[in-house]
Amino acid sequence: MSEKKQAGGLQGVVAGQSAISTVGVGGIGLNYRGYDINDLAYKCTFEEVTYLLLKGHLPTQQQLDELKTLIWSKRYIPCKLKQILETLPKESHPMDIMRTVTSILGILEPETKSGQEYDISIRLISIFGPALLYWYHYSNSGIKINENTGKDSIAENFLKLYHLKSEIDPLVIKTFDVSLILYAEHDFAASTFAARVTVSTLSDFYSGITTAIGTLRGPLHGGANEAAMQYLEPLRSIPQADQFLNSRYQSKQLIMGFGHRVYKKEDPRSPIIKDFSLQLSKTQNGDPTLLAVSQHIEKRMVEEKKIYPNLDFYSASAYRQCGVPTPMFTAIFVISRMTGWGGHIIEQRSNNKLMRPVSDYTGPAKKQFVPIEMRNKANL
Amino acid sequence: MSEKKQAGGLQGVVAGQSAISTVGVGGIGLNYRGYDINDLAYKCTFEEVTYLLLKGHLPTQQQLDELKTLIWSKRYIPCKLKQILETLPKESHPMDIMRTVTSILGILEPETKSGQEYDISIRLISIFGPALLYWYHYSNSGIKINENTGKDSIAENFLKLYHLKSEIDPLVIKTFDVSLILYAEHDFAASTFAARVTVSTLSDFYSGITTAIGTLRGPLHGGANEAAMQYLEPLRSIPQADQFLNSRYQSKQLIMGFGHRVYKKEDPRSPIIKDFSLQLSKTQNGDPTLLAVSQHIEKRMVEEKKIYPNLDFYSASAYRQCGVPTPMFTAIFVISRMTGWGGHIIEQRSNNKLMRPVSDYTGPAKKQFVPIEMRNKANL
Repeated sequence: MSEKKQAGGLQGVVAGQSAISTVGVGGIGLNYRGYDINDLAYKCTFEEVTYLLLKGHLPTQQQLDELKTLIWSKRYIPCKLKQILETLPKESHPMDIMRTVTSILGILEPETKSGQEYDISIRLISIFGPALLYWYHYSNSGIKINENTGKDSIAENFLKLYHLKSEIDPLVIKTFDVSLILYAEHDFAASTFAARVTVSTLSDFYSGITTAIGTLRGPLHGGANEAAMQYLEPLRSIPQADQFLNSRYQSKQLIMGFGHRVYKKEDPRSPIIKDFSLQLSKTQNGDPTLLAVSQHIEKRMVEEKKIYPNLDFYSASAYRQCGVPTPMFTAIFVISRMTGWGGHIIEQRSNNKLMRPVSDYTGPAKKQFVPIEMRNKANL
Repeated sequence: MSEKKQAGGLQGVVAGQSAISTVGVGGIGLNYRGYDINDLAYKCTFEEVTYLLLKGHLPTQQQLDELKTLIWSKRYIPCKLKQILETLPKESHPMDIMRTVTSILGILEPETKSGQEYDISIRLISIFGPALLYWYHYSNSGIKINENTGKDSIAENFLKLYHLKSEIDPLVIKTFDVSLILYAEHDFAASTFAARVTVSTLSDFYSGITTAIGTLRGPLHGGANEAAMQYLEPLRSIPQADQFLNSRYQSKQLIMGFGHRVYKKEDPRSPIIKDFSLQLSKTQNGDPTLLAVSQHIEKRMVEEKKIYPNLDFYSASAYRQCGVPTPMFTAIFVISRMTGWGGHIIEQRSNNKLMRPVSDYTGPAKKQFVPIEMRNKANL
């Protein structure tokens, strides 16, 4: 099988077929189920995109209304889950909370028959924000929030529960909603691919999603927008930004939020979230210095290194201006990508084959066994 | 990239290098770190194999003694975890308990720096049995077990805690121990591969293991020995076995416990576990009818279909004769494979590259966006 050996990381390896999104397919750009990401971001809500990714087509007004009612009815946190969330320390990583919530829901509300994928997906999309914020407020200040804020959108519900306010600036809601649309789906990203491997053994839906969350958690995947915010945070002037960049250039360290395995030029999602981040910077919630620094870093990276920003780079400043704390960025990504993961699990199950590759063995040839009483450093 | 398209399921695709085990590599058979599986099963304990897989070489007597002390010290269940286990219903799937225990330990005892892989692996190997059985006894009968049984082996500790006895038949312990050795490692099996994808994003160790457990859970992977026991259970005579086989032949259904993606002939682990299952059948714990039925099914499958039993087939009767209930079979597999998963995560991290394949896009070409007020069945 030596002709199939790869450079590593499965780069360029076609791991299966998929009809959900195009990521860098020549001449098409990024689309979900055939629709251009620009149309979806500017003309749709996250709930419409949720329906599109899970059901395969955009909803009519009636279908969307039904979905909104379903989301509203699926926000409640079961009593046992609240009890468990109350025991988890405030120092917990929000992604560990999300992974654990999913694993526990797999026990409390198990998948018992086929055809439940859509309902479980909506259940998870609806409860993720409330459960995360229930833990967040309880562990930080002892407040037991009321998770339901009426028939608000996912974005508005999250922002109201996080800020504990009944009114949120519409541009903040719209920016948050757009970010959910942009993060919703990206073909065989590592988290999606790992979830498909998990369900390819005919394991349950919740196992697929715990896998996806654990995989998204890493800084080379979902953790990148947090990592971008961490280095942007202390940069409060152009000279500081230059100093940072020069030092990273010298040490040849990765600069999170730039470059992408699949997009060799611009990430088509980047200009969209940049647009909203810039709009926010001009409002009273805005941080124009953060945007000036971000644009300067982008300009130098593109001109000097020919490396373009990906979605994570301007998402960092967008979320920051929505008032969301950095350690929650990747958990918000979970709420969004849950839609794509759901679509991919449904697709994997529709034509399943166990995903079981092989390795190129590089270990020792056969070794003579040595009984324990005769073992020493020389014969191990 | 069309020249790289595969038949599906990554069959025969080399997904990376590994020095841990050979699975069907020509002329070598199955070995762990160079040692033949027969030597390890007949001449070693599971603790020695644990050390071998995680550290790369067999332990000296002193290293083994240190490991046994470490295992003994790492069996305790934290108070918060006990509280949570007490809330989980007795109907829970044992694999969901294992997945949740891992996810919660990732919160209570997080990985905070590099170099902790060995200690976390041993922690999980040591606590898995006690935590599972704490939940099992509490949810079924309200008993809060004392998880520590002294410096017993993993096998003896599990059997004592399950049976709530202070003495276990040595052949039962040895059979259980051998099964742990045989299930410990199998190269890029779906669970191991999925765990490597998870940690390839630089996610934490516990996320890798929750992924692995969720993946092992499926009946096409770890669930196969449970599935084998389920059909073996009601077969109490050779004619009943014939009737079962004939009906499966006719409906062309898979017969779990037979065949393997990689081994085209015999699974080298099968004769070993068969040997112990046969030995047990001749003792007072034995079920000779179960063994007669199993051997008859094996004989017909090999002669008529040229399909050989894999490890799962005789593991079913071996575990049954150890007195372990069927729904726990796959959870025991977790305790064992934890060693291989740990070894693979260490190996993946030693030369990491993000695992991100691509898909072959089979979806629609670009579609014209339709605003919601104009959508109807014809234009979606």
